[in-house]
Amino acid sequence: MPDQKPVSTIVFDVNETLLDITTLEPLFARVFGDALVLREWFAELILYSQTMTLSGRYAPFGALAGGVLRMVGANKAVAVTDDDVAELKSLIGSMPAHPDVAPALRKLREAGFRLVTLTNSPPSPAPTPLEKAGIADYFDRSFSVDEVAQFKPHPATYQMVAGALDLQTDDLCMVACHLWDTIGAQAAGCQGAFLTRPNNNLIKAENVPQPHYLSDDLVDLAKQIIAANGG
Amino acid sequence: MPDQKPVSTIVFDVNETLLDITTLEPLFARVFGDALVLREWFAELILYSQTMTLSGRYAPFGALAGGVLRMVGANKAVAVTDDDVAELKSLIGSMPAHPDVAPALRKLREAGFRLVTLTNSPPSPAPTPLEKAGIADYFDRSFSVDEVAQFKPHPATYQMVAGALDLQTDDLCMVACHLWDTIGAQAAGCQGAFLTRPNNNLIKAENVPQPHYLSDDLVDLAKQIIAANGG
Repeated sequence: MPDQKPVSTIVFDVNETLLDITTLEPLFARVFGDALVLREWFAELILYSQTMTLSGRYAPFGALAGGVLRMVGANKAVAVTDDDVAELKSLIGSMPAHPDVAPALRKLREAGFRLVTLTNSPPSPAPTPLEKAGIADYFDRSFSVDEVAQFKPHPATYQMVAGALDLQTDDLCMVACHLWDTIGAQAAGCQGAFLTRPNNNLIKAENVPQPHYLSDDLVDLAKQIIAANGG
Repeated sequence: MPDQKPVSTIVFDVNETLLDITTLEPLFARVFGDALVLREWFAELILYSQTMTLSGRYAPFGALAGGVLRMVGANKAVAVTDDDVAELKSLIGSMPAHPDVAPALRKLREAGFRLVTLTNSPPSPAPTPLEKAGIADYFDRSFSVDEVAQFKPHPATYQMVAGALDLQTDDLCMVACHLWDTIGAQAAGCQGAFLTRPNNNLIKAENVPQPHYLSDDLVDLAKQIIAANGG
């Protein structure tokens, strides 16, 4: 990145990027008879979060997650109970960190970067999901889109992080395993680092912003960010 | 709808609402060994079209459709060839009308409504998909989001239709089998009629706008629109 100024701050997406959503698979296997319905539910959840923001509406991510679970149930003629929705919310709140997370965060901190998170999930009472996963201490701040009542990848979400830290968006590098997140962050002026966790890959098409850094391993991605931005 | 002024114009979504996308299923069955991957591809396509619009970027729907097909292939470790992408685009361009479409359109025309379409697909050279499906003559105008380079459900897309017809958005009723389309249309001031075709259902959650009319059959939906808006 010789034509970009070095970033000081790394912004991490939380769900799936840091925390392992495959721990929700047994719920989907039990309710739908197919663990892979998790992927369909998650895609529909992100789709409708974006729809709400494009429409100038907002509902907390958890309420939307439950509503979309029931919708996917109706689509498949499968009954989704209140208990299923409660279990989903409980599981989302206590996902473990991926094994590559702590080593990557340590490496970035040692290189002098400030680390923060930015999630679509609303703020949570303690212990937070990051605390339960044992990685909260790596982060200086945790941001939620709830503050601007707009979901990622609306530019206001990335601008909120920059503003709260007294920075510009080009001082930030967004790390996410969702291309929609790096697309939005880059459009807002951030650098973008795309982590290709299983079931997450690039879209190579006209006008789709490609990430600055790309790896299937967060430690390797951290090394690329450090190499390009000094540290 | 006693508190709403009667609409003069019915705006139809095209893909899946009027034209039957299940004719793409054999392609997905051949490439992925599972026809239902069609649903995953379509959800990801809509998700990324919304991402592009939220990010102030635009790529024609067909280019995005092909790129997302390759991405879904990578997610599932399935090779997607140039021929597969070409076949997808060809199939999308020649989908048949659902059997309830012509009777419903006839009924609305006879009741005095003006009918138009609004699609995420770019304008097509003749014969257009609506012409090939034999239903083009029911419509006064066909609009594409391509004109504003923003995808539905951005309010600019519905406002474009109203503006081109010298109307306000509250003169329009949007008919779609995608809740994200009626949510956006209603947020922009239109009435919303939601057609629950297979694999499409409501989301009942806080702040999610519920449609004014709801049916699994387009003729029945047309009757509801006529009953509420005179005609």
